[in-house]
Amino acid sequence: MNSISSVSETNSLFLKSKGIKPSYQRLKIYSFLIENRIHPTVDIIYKNLCSEIPTLSKTTVYNTLNLFIQKKLIQKLIIEETETRYDINTSMHGHFKCEKCGEVCDIFLDDDVLLSKKLQNFKINETHIYFKGLCKKCSAIA
Amino acid sequence: MNSISSVSETNSLFLKSKGIKPSYQRLKIYSFLIENRIHPTVDIIYKNLCSEIPTLSKTTVYNTLNLFIQKKLIQKLIIEETETRYDINTSMHGHFKCEKCGEVCDIFLDDDVLLSKKLQNFKINETHIYFKGLCKKCSAIA
Repeated sequence: MNSISSVSETNSLFLKSKGIKPSYQRLKIYSFLIENRIHPTVDIIYKNLCSEIPTLSKTTVYNTLNLFIQKKLIQKLIIEETETRYDINTSMHGHFKCEKCGEVCDIFLDDDVLLSKKLQNFKINETHIYFKGLCKKCSAIA
Repeated sequence: MNSISSVSETNSLFLKSKGIKPSYQRLKIYSFLIENRIHPTVDIIYKNLCSEIPTLSKTTVYNTLNLFIQKKLIQKLIIEETETRYDINTSMHGHFKCEKCGEVCDIFLDDDVLLSKKLQNFKINETHIYFKGLCKKCSAIA
């Protein structure tokens, strides 16, 4: 077994362990998310995979991502009204979106924000923290 | 001058000071936001004002809110893909949306999250923090 098929086999077993039937398309979408930590949109995933999977549709990408969310494999990022992104890293962390280059990067903050007394008696299921502005690169150019 | 017209006059002068022509509709929308700290949507504002202002349209509400955002009088909250809310409080604070009753409430957190070393060299224009789960009331019932 070569390393590519080994990775694919590992991903396949992982999806199965989460109750997801590892179809070819689902495996390809999952691998894309693992290998491209760019918080992609449905469109980005579709554009990157459609030549390799000619039968792929945006609806399939969308439905697969929703299945992954339901099984808590990924999380949804809503930073803009018109743009939903997806993140394979479901641990608590924030994001920064550059208003110039459009890149979304991870910001790992201290957990203190989660421990606020103001949130006592609330049952928190999701925490989202994001910043908008200019990233390091674009700040340096501006 | 009674107290209602006095408030209206104050709001009118305030909008003028921000370079906004204080039309009747703009004043009504601004007053609604001041008096109803519920982080309303366009629909909520429209439904609450349309009987009093029969010529009002959702487009006018939307355009007025965008003008207020442009002049930094309000901020936009994007917690759900399909729901944009508006907040008259533009100071840095977080929000909690209850997944059961739908209410969005303010959460005033310490400023530490803003001072993270991880954000050095980034130019931050906006900070958004929100939580989703069950509010105090719904947690108590559940």
